[in-house]
This record gives sequence, C-alpha cells and structure tokens, in this order.
Amino acid sequence: IPFLQRKSLVVLKDWAGLWTDGRYFLQAADQLAGSGIELMKSGEPEVPTIGGFLAGHLPQGGALGFDGRTVSNSFAGTLTEALKEKQVTFACDKDLADAVWIDRPALSKEPVWELGCEYAGASREDKLARVREELAKKADVIVLTALDEIAWLLNLRGNDVQCTPVFLAFMKITAETAELFVHESILNADIQAKLAAAGVTLRPYEEIYAGISEVPAGQKLWIDSSYANYRIVQSVPEGVIVNDEASPVILMKSVKNATEMANMRQAHIKDGAALTRFMHWLKTTVGREPVTELSAAAKLEGFRQEMEHYVGPSFDPIVGYGSHGAIVHYEPTPETDAELKPQSLCLVDTGGHYLEGTTDVTRTFALGETTEEEKKAFTLVLKGHLNLGAAVFRQGLCGQNLDYLARSPLWEHGLDYNHGTGHGVGYLLSVHEGPQRIHWRITGAKTVPFEEGMITSNEPGVYLEGKFGIRHENLVLTRKGEMTEYGQMMYFENLTMVPFDLDGIDASLLTERERGLLNAYHKQVYETLAPLYSEEEKQWLADYTAAI
Amino acid sequence: IPFLQRKSLVVLKDWAGLWTDGRYFLQAADQLAGSGIELMKSGEPEVPTIGGFLAGHLPQGGALGFDGRTVSNSFAGTLTEALKEKQVTFACDKDLADAVWIDRPALSKEPVWELGCEYAGASREDKLARVREELAKKADVIVLTALDEIAWLLNLRGNDVQCTPVFLAFMKITAETAELFVHESILNADIQAKLAAAGVTLRPYEEIYAGISEVPAGQKLWIDSSYANYRIVQSVPEGVIVNDEASPVILMKSVKNATEMANMRQAHIKDGAALTRFMHWLKTTVGREPVTELSAAAKLEGFRQEMEHYVGPSFDPIVGYGSHGAIVHYEPTPETDAELKPQSLCLVDTGGHYLEGTTDVTRTFALGETTEEEKKAFTLVLKGHLNLGAAVFRQGLCGQNLDYLARSPLWEHGLDYNHGTGHGVGYLLSVHEGPQRIHWRITGAKTVPFEEGMITSNEPGVYLEGKFGIRHENLVLTRKGEMTEYGQMMYFENLTMVPFDLDGIDASLLTERERGLLNAYHKQVYETLAPLYSEEEKQWLADYTAAI
Repeated sequence: IPFLQRKSLVVLKDWAGLWTDGRYFLQAADQLAGSGIELMKSGEPEVPTIGGFLAGHLPQGGALGFDGRTVSNSFAGTLTEALKEKQVTFACDKDLADAVWIDRPALSKEPVWELGCEYAGASREDKLARVREELAKKADVIVLTALDEIAWLLNLRGNDVQCTPVFLAFMKITAETAELFVHESILNADIQAKLAAAGVTLRPYEEIYAGISEVPAGQKLWIDSSYANYRIVQSVPEGVIVNDEASPVILMKSVKNATEMANMRQAHIKDGAALTRFMHWLKTTVGREPVTELSAAAKLEGFRQEMEHYVGPSFDPIVGYGSHGAIVHYEPTPETDAELKPQSLCLVDTGGHYLEGTTDVTRTFALGETTEEEKKAFTLVLKGHLNLGAAVFRQGLCGQNLDYLARSPLWEHGLDYNHGTGHGVGYLLSVHEGPQRIHWRITGAKTVPFEEGMITSNEPGVYLEGKFGIRHENLVLTRKGEMTEYGQMMYFENLTMVPFDLDGIDASLLTERERGLLNAYHKQVYETLAPLYSEEEKQWLADYTAAI
Repeated sequence: IPFLQRKSLVVLKDWAGLWTDGRYFLQAADQLAGSGIELMKSGEPEVPTIGGFLAGHLPQGGALGFDGRTVSNSFAGTLTEALKEKQVTFACDKDLADAVWIDRPALSKEPVWELGCEYAGASREDKLARVREELAKKADVIVLTALDEIAWLLNLRGNDVQCTPVFLAFMKITAETAELFVHESILNADIQAKLAAAGVTLRPYEEIYAGISEVPAGQKLWIDSSYANYRIVQSVPEGVIVNDEASPVILMKSVKNATEMANMRQAHIKDGAALTRFMHWLKTTVGREPVTELSAAAKLEGFRQEMEHYVGPSFDPIVGYGSHGAIVHYEPTPETDAELKPQSLCLVDTGGHYLEGTTDVTRTFALGETTEEEKKAFTLVLKGHLNLGAAVFRQGLCGQNLDYLARSPLWEHGLDYNHGTGHGVGYLLSVHEGPQRIHWRITGAKTVPFEEGMITSNEPGVYLEGKFGIRHENLVLTRKGEMTEYGQMMYFENLTMVPFDLDGIDASLLTERERGLLNAYHKQVYETLAPLYSEEEKQWLADYTAAI
C-alpha cells in the first residue's frame, strides 16, 4: 500500500478547505461534494501550501488555533515561518475538534501483550542497551515519541491504533533510567514485572510534558523535532541543549535481525497461501455467484484467519473493481461497494499481521475478458516491478538510485504513477516505516542506503481515471550478495509468494530477461506454496504459475 | 574523460604527503616512488582527510601556510573547522611554492578572440541582461570568479589555460555596471570597443581584491564561496551581506541554446569522422608498422587537424595500451610510452575544440587477439553505456537517478569503476562543467535535474590493474520527448558518432534490446559519417558499423 500522508483541514470564519495529495484527489472530491469544504490539491502548481494560504488570509496579528498534541513540530515550524510577517500567534493548548465532535470515542486503552524473543529475536534489555550505546555518543536523555519505536524497543504490542498493534505511550531514557509514560491499566502484572526487571519504570501517560520539563538545564536532550508533536518541543526547558535528529530506533527496527528475517519469510508463505486461495476463488466465482468488493474483502480475510498466528489486517483492505482501482487508496464502503463482473480488472491491496511478521501485497486480477489497453498497462507495470525486484547494486545505494527501474517502462509510454515505489515495513508494527524509501525525488534528509535486513515494498502502478487501476506489490528483503574489491554487492529477496495473474499479461511486451524473471518467480511460488496445498489446489497453482 | 579533482601536497618539517583520489592511486604511486613523498589515498577508510591529518600533527597555536589565491574558500573552510581546537592560524598571503620553483613560467597573457553569435547563439548583451535578471532577484552585486563563466558571458575565448580556451579574468557586475578585471594587453582594440559598447569597463587583473573591498556596506554581494578562492572571500568588507550560492551562469551555460545544439552536432560529426579514420588506421597499422601510444596520439591529432574550424585538443590525450589502460588518467610520456602490439586493448580518451563546440570521446580498441576476460569486460561496460544512453525519464530526474543503468551490468558481475559516469561539457570551454553530473552518490548540493540542452558524458569503465582498462564514452544531449498528463518526458540524443569496436564484443552477453540499441547506433553512425567519406572509406565504415 503506498505511503499515506497527513490530510489537513483549515477552517476560517467563512471558508473551509481540505488539503490532500494526489492519491486522494478523486476520493476527496467525491466525499467532499456538497459539504461546502473546498478540496485543495497539495502539490498542484496553482494550489498554495497551508502556510502560504494562511499568510494570505489571516489578519495582521491574528491567532491560529490547533491542538499542539496533534500537529507535528515540523509542520508547526512551516506555519511559524509563513506567518512571521503577519505576527500571527498560536493558540495550541485547546482541542477545538473536541467541542464539536459529539460522539467522539475516548482515548483507547486496550491491553498490551508480550512479543516473545522467538518472534522479536532480541530481548528488550539488549535493545535498551543498543539505544543507550547510541545515546552515549550524542546526548544525556532521549525522548521517544513514535509508538512503533516504543513497541519495538520493549517487545510489547497493543491495540490502540487500528491495524497497527501499538499502544499509547512515550518514553524517556537516560544512561540509568528508562521511564515509560503509559496508562498503567493496560499493562498486566506479568508485563509490569518484566518491565521492572529490565529497569523500566512507569509514569502516567499525561505526565510526558512534565517529564520533559524536568530535564536539567545544561543536559543534552535527543529529540526528533520533525516527528515529535508541537507541545513536546514547546515543553523543553530553557538551557537544555536539543540534539535534533532522527531517533536511533528508526534504523534499528528497520534492519531486521536473523530471527525476524526467518519469521518474515514464514509469515509471507502463510499469507501467500491465503491470498492465492483467494485468487482462485475470485477468478472462479465472479460471473457465477454475486461478488462485491466488500464480500471479496471478507472472503480474503476469512482465508487469512485460517492461518496459524494470524493477528489481523495490517491496513484496511483495498479492493477496487474497474474504475475504483484508479483511486489509489480506495476502500470499499456499503455506499460505494461495486459488483465484480467477468470483465476488467480488480485491484486487491491488503496485508496481514502474524506473530511472524507483517505482510503488504497487491495483486491485480483479470476477471474474464480484458482489453488490450488493460493488458498493456498491466504488463508495463509488471516489467517495472520485475526489473526493480532483480536489482543488483553496491552497498551505499538508496531508493532514489533504483526508482528508475520501476518507472522506466511506464515513462517510455508516457505514463507514471503519483506515489512512491516503495516504503519500509515494520515487524508486526506499522505497515509503513522508514527510514528507507523508493522514489526518484531526492530530498536531503531521506537518503538512507539499503542495509541487509531492511524490508521494503516494490509497488509500481498505473491509474487511468474512470477506467481501471493496476498495482503489483511484493515485499522484498535486502540481502548481501558478493563481496568484491569494488565493494559489497546487494540484492533483493522476494518475500511475497503470490502469482501474478497470467491472464493480465501481454507476453509480447516482456523482454527475454523479464520473462525469465517472471517464470523463475512463479516457479519459486509454486515450490513454496505447494507443500501447504491439497492435490486439487496444487493443480490450479500449477496453472497460475506456469512458465510463459 | 572522467572528472579530475584537486590534488593536494602537504609539507611538514620532516614529512610530505600527496592526497589524491582513487583515479590516481596507480599513477601517483608510480610517480612518487623514491621521492620521499607519501601517497595519501583520499577516501580510503584508514586515510585521514587533510584537515584531520593536520589536526593530529600541527602544534597548539601553530601556523599553516598556503597561497590564498590558489586554495578554494570551501577547502579552507574545512581546514578552519578541523583546526579550530588547535587554534591554528593561517598565513595565506605568501606564495610559498614560488620561492622554490626556480623555472616557474610567468602568468599567461595570451590574446583573447571573439566567438561570433553564429557560434554562441546569443549576444553578450543578451547574456548580461539574463545575469542581471537573476541578480535583481537575489543581490546588488555579483562577482564571477570562474574563467569559463566569464568567457561564456562575454562571448570571448583565450588561451591562458592548457586545453581550455579561457583567459585570466574576474568580473564584478551590478544592475548598471560590469567591470572586467583583466590584463588589458590581451584584448585587441576591436574587442575593447565591443566590450565598451556592451557597457563592460576594464580594470587591471590584480585589482579584483580592491574591487571587492569597494562593495558598500549594506549591499548584498552574490559570490559562490565554494568556487571562489580564499582571498576573494577574505576581501569582502564587513557589513556586506553575502548571498553565498552557485553563480546563475553555471546553469545558463550548461543549457545550450538552439544554435549551440546545432553546432555541437556538427562538431561531433567532424570529430567522429577524424576518430573513425584513426580507428581504421590503428586497427590496420598495429602489427605492421611500429606504433606507440605517443605516435598514435599524434596521428589522431593529425586527423583532427584536417577538420575545418579545429581549434585544438580539449584535454591531453589519454592513449593507454594494455595495463596502461587501467590507469584512469594515464597520459603517455616519452618515459612511459608503450608500443602497441596486435593483442589486448588500447583505451583512447581524447577530445577536440572546434568553433562549433567541444568533444570528449573514449573508445577502446581491440588490437588483434583479445582474451575472453577482455571481451567480457568490454561488453559489460558497453551494456551499461547503451542502457544509460537509451534512458527515457520524466523531467526532474538527476544523474543520481540514472547512474544505476550504467553500472548494473558490472555490479551483477561484482565489478565497478572508481569515477563518475558523467559530467557536463562546455561549448568551446572546459571539457568538464556542472551543474549536472551522473553518479549514484547523493550529495545534497549537486542534485540538478537534466534540462533540454544539457550535454553530458556517458562513460562507464572497468579497470583491471596490471591487465587492461576499458571505457566507452559518448556525449549525449538532453532532449524533451513526449509531454503527457504525467509530465514532460526526456531522453538523450547521442552526439558522438564513432563505432564501438565490434572485435571487442561478446555478443552472447547482450540482450536483444541492447543488440538493437547497438545496431541502431551503428546505423546512425554510418549514415552520418558516410557523406564525409570516400568510397574506399565507406567500405570499412560499413564493416565497423555492421549489424550484429
């Protein structure tokens, strides 16, 4: 699933607008219709940034209200810069949405559970020691504000965020202390004892701002002001020196250890077996029995639930039939639910959490007859996917160096897609994580080289508004290849094990090499999934993975 | 020819060392042998930077001497930073080398000549107006310190730097004034009159430092401190606000206008005809008559001199036979001059200046028998060259996004090369210019997208120490392709028109697409050069460009 970005609502006395990026233009236009809220297409040449817009519309010396706990410090910084000349002040200690959101649910306080070392591959004590090793090089105190970093560090999982098994918390760590700011009620006695044994002490969740203000003047505080919320940064006392850079946990958790790598392979085999069963059900049922986007999603969820150690979906399923496939983050609802007919394409982007890790996979299925235009687009996207997956490169390269591989077959035909080609994936954490990413655009801070153990999505696409959408997505594991006098060579290992629908392919558009890559992958899919399948299932699996 | 970097000599009372990068390790080790000067391999993990080394070896409060006119301000900045704690002072107004360099030549004062609008495509008045347009956005005064920028701006050429037709000068430009700091004697009366008519006034060359100190306090001065010498920057008066960024001329001159593009094509046709004649002479003469690296270089220079409007070589010729080919910047001298035998490979990297522009081309020739290892390396490098040359991409991409294309066939075999894949090329100026470049390494400041009109080298290589070197280099012109709803597509047009030696190719290593690219290029070479050739020449041209 391509990376999601913040959507922002701006409300003036006589106007309201929603800023969102290219992936939501179609969906937002649809959902905002009649609301009186204007769609502001971020990134389009004629659309101002939020800061630029406010600078043009707020009065001199005016006030801007937002909840400082829900606005990132970096975004607040862009507003400060844009509104400097207008001398606009911020009112950020009020939760304005709360006053009008009548049936708003309370903050989630779901129970936390332990992820054993057989899954995490390292103890929380070891992880804490690694963080302290990095801390010693740069600062006296570090505050962790990202929920997935805290969950990773403590080998704990929760259920406070939909589809992301994390729990609400902050952490403050020094060479000697480790304070977890958390609703104590969500930790059972066993976990509390284990945390105490690891030297982790508990404090109420809301005390984080006090916790920060306690850092003594003269000490160095490590905080990533681009991730932290505005109020966190505002709470730093005068005299404290801020080491403002990315948390060391980001890189640590992105580089999977040997246990996590082995587990991730297993999770993907189970997930591949489930999704390929779904593929067979879909291709043999549509046109015979009524199938809708929602019923198909439910069927797929059922196949996943049959798998051992399945925890739940890693994001809301995207099942987009026909023109719905062209809406990058389309999620079917009862209002939009379309019936699948034996023609055109159906884009299915889903993923699951297992104790053995997290999956994120997109397949586009040909239902009955497909047009030449559909097959051509399907195949061009597949070429890019195959070429990127087969990259061999020297250690030190970043996603920016490789993105061309995925897009060039499209560019050669004047096509492109409006999202990144790849994002990192957490281990039973967020399906989107950094620091690595695959996109051609070079933005200084985000050029992190691929390291062995990183798991990244490979997901080029094409979206023709009103017609269809195509995306082919595997997760790939970065591996070390040959070490030569010229450096350490690297390559990607495919984790995802699901056939690409041969019915969508125009084989005449594939080069000999691409055909070889596809056949080799399909051979591997067959050999990997066959042991899990009945004799009957093996038959259609063989068809789906036949060499072309 | 790959981009050259500064080499630095550091002399202590009892030690001396030369810092140089990977492209000179072999040559420097050879030339320094017995001199007592240590080779410091820049970039190798165990080798300190010059700043780091000095920080470890200079005494507290010591002094470091260098000529401030010959050390860039940016390099001096790294020294300031490294030597901060040691409180080392700089003595930079003495020319220390002068005291020991007995037969040092005087500063060059060669005559300047006019490059007509039929070659430059724009008048100096128009160019000055464009610079002032950019200046108005950012500052009150701009000082140009790069010789090629001044020559480009004034449509003048000179002969003060070997192989680069520029003249010694500085410029200081405001909205109303344009001062050229130059030895007046090198400008004839006609040029002086034309400069006066364009509003350019003359001042003595040495007065530039005074000229800078005259900038009034409160004014904004645009100067690129990373290009300017240390003394220039030290001359900026207090109270002057420095706009420290790249000169606007860099991008202007890199984007060739329509006249320059058309001329560059012509220069490359003439140059291709000369080099292909040389190719035929070389392949039919070696083994029959004595040929050495130097005599071959002289022969090639002779072929170029037969061409109309030939000005001279654009850099010292590299003719490296056998193991000499593995030395990236090898230039044959009477001491090293090797005889060419009918076996192994000969790397020939040369270029010419014509009134119609500048060429830079490398071909590697198979002389008689070649080994399998040689053919394999030759073909792998060719694959990368062909794939990069055939890139189609969306406007906005930089060289960092495309470098993978040139290197991946090597990486797949554990090989690589220790230099950039491409550099910009000036129009009858420096054979190396920015701002675009092709290398995978992302260094924030240098990520400039390809624009239509940029001319860039495409020159992957492989160098096996003690054995042979291979490089295939064409210049390519960035062109606009299709404009679609997804953006402006771009591609490269090959300017260089010289066959790749088919005798070096192992065709079994080429994909169908690569073979097609090679054959299409060779067809174009034949059709382009044939009209310049006699019937007899056309025969071997047809052989050299035959489809495989």
